[in-house]
Amino acid sequence: MAVYTQLGAEQLAELIGHFGVGELVSAKGIAEGVSNSNWLIETTGTNGTGARFILTMYEYRIELGDLPFFLSLLDHLAAKGCPVPRTIHDLSGALYRMIADPGSPAGPAKAVALIEFLPGVSLGDPSPAQAFAVGRSLAQMHLAAADFPAARANGMGLAEWQRLADACGADGLAAIDPGLAGIVADELAQLASQWPQDLPLGVIHADLFPDNVLMLGEQVTGLIDFYFACTDLIAYDVAVTHAAWCFDGAGNLFNAAVSNALLEGYNSIRPLSPAECAALPVLARGAALRFALSRAFDWINTPVGALVIKKDPMAFVRRLQFYADPANAAIFIAP
Amino acid sequence: MAVYTQLGAEQLAELIGHFGVGELVSAKGIAEGVSNSNWLIETTGTNGTGARFILTMYEYRIELGDLPFFLSLLDHLAAKGCPVPRTIHDLSGALYRMIADPGSPAGPAKAVALIEFLPGVSLGDPSPAQAFAVGRSLAQMHLAAADFPAARANGMGLAEWQRLADACGADGLAAIDPGLAGIVADELAQLASQWPQDLPLGVIHADLFPDNVLMLGEQVTGLIDFYFACTDLIAYDVAVTHAAWCFDGAGNLFNAAVSNALLEGYNSIRPLSPAECAALPVLARGAALRFALSRAFDWINTPVGALVIKKDPMAFVRRLQFYADPANAAIFIAP
Repeated sequence: MAVYTQLGAEQLAELIGHFGVGELVSAKGIAEGVSNSNWLIETTGTNGTGARFILTMYEYRIELGDLPFFLSLLDHLAAKGCPVPRTIHDLSGALYRMIADPGSPAGPAKAVALIEFLPGVSLGDPSPAQAFAVGRSLAQMHLAAADFPAARANGMGLAEWQRLADACGADGLAAIDPGLAGIVADELAQLASQWPQDLPLGVIHADLFPDNVLMLGEQVTGLIDFYFACTDLIAYDVAVTHAAWCFDGAGNLFNAAVSNALLEGYNSIRPLSPAECAALPVLARGAALRFALSRAFDWINTPVGALVIKKDPMAFVRRLQFYADPANAAIFIAP
Repeated sequence: MAVYTQLGAEQLAELIGHFGVGELVSAKGIAEGVSNSNWLIETTGTNGTGARFILTMYEYRIELGDLPFFLSLLDHLAAKGCPVPRTIHDLSGALYRMIADPGSPAGPAKAVALIEFLPGVSLGDPSPAQAFAVGRSLAQMHLAAADFPAARANGMGLAEWQRLADACGADGLAAIDPGLAGIVADELAQLASQWPQDLPLGVIHADLFPDNVLMLGEQVTGLIDFYFACTDLIAYDVAVTHAAWCFDGAGNLFNAAVSNALLEGYNSIRPLSPAECAALPVLARGAALRFALSRAFDWINTPVGALVIKKDPMAFVRRLQFYADPANAAIFIAP
């Protein structure tokens, strides 16, 4: 959650003018996104009623060369009826614009994109019926992305986990938990030998936490924040979503009803193959390790005063251990 | 800028239900307010069109006993036509509600209020015409508040500055700037002997920075964030607003055109008396010292990882020195 850059009203108004969406009426920096700054923008609109958008300034971790993939993927999925915000192109048709950073005008320009605002709220405590709807939406997204023409390597895949672990260092991991370095080394070795190779590939969201799903009641109104989207094993996206949704916030306890509903919802639209189902325990271990490591890296490297809440890496270590327990493999077997 | 508390969608929806403003449609944590958490809330509204509100959770520095003053002041000023957001009362008529903190359910409940959303954006670089409008709005507010029946002592007045300086300590001030402790001690002594006693009192905003003014073009659409509002010398509010508006962001250079326009706008609605004009240099020194000290205190005491941007105390020390220079006293003489 962050707004890294202060944008004055004058600069915002000039920027919004390039998109042909009416005059700027309101702009509120919003506490979403750890790699970018976001504003909820209201304009006069173009047909007499106001319009709302999310303006995103890309700050960290995002390669400019990846923006066309992310932003045109939104257009592709929205055009297919997925609840995904469209990218608002500027008057020249561009997906994003470059603007000077008001904090360091002589420094490099920053990329900004204007994206449709979608209603809905992010759940803290999803019900099975809501998890079912999320599973459906994830499967719909996978099907809708099948003919998306672009591809992008997963920059947070198996190879990156080893680099993240190295960057944390044994001392850094030990500072978080005395056993963490050993757990990470063991898991990396096991996952490297067990990672599935022959499952279907596709465009995946790769970060579909409750934060990134907007809902109204039991309806999914938005899948957002596609900035980890990439081409990878489709079933890995199911594993990520499972790890993100099926453990109750406070105690991180496995919620079987939510788990079953999420998988049923997914299978109702895109049935997982027997090979995908069989691979889910190892994919879910990988997903849990991925978030444990990225959280550990952020924990160790977050600068003092950064406007982010540090997230506990151990919450995902506990999920990893849950998935690694053979007694729990049955949760992924289709009923 | 902060969202200190995570509120789940379920808790937000339940809370919003108590206000009779329709069903929750969207909630975005916004990066405004250093003493509270804020969400931009959208509901279905009650007449077929959506409605928007700011939900504020009071986190720090605000005494519960002061909330009726702040929140009924908004109602009073809005009813008089000032561009101030109304407080939305709950269905029982209460100005605010108490809710459990989801982060520590066993801990004390927190107060939350729902406030009208107003359009407009905060300026980074106000023009003279915009400063004129702000001066007018400030004077209108002072006149409209004249029959507000409640009073509140200024918790950030002269006596508090000494306490703030003591709390910073000479070492703390020296860590910010080697000369700061001496400047503060000198100013405190001078202001204590020179502070005016016989000027008109009234309800003042006491923190009318550009952040707290919403504008569309040259029109003021909102005066917001009244959480320092109190009963004090009315001319002191003019001094605070002057210190906040009349120095250009980057170099903190005095902007004479903005200063003249701000004062002209104010005088066009509520002409400052000769005694008030004569007191403005010392009042402005006090205002500059107040923000230098509160920033210094925050600079020294902001916990690691807090979600706030630390503001440079020295920007207000430079303004203090500007105001203290007798050569600059003429800026406050009515043309």
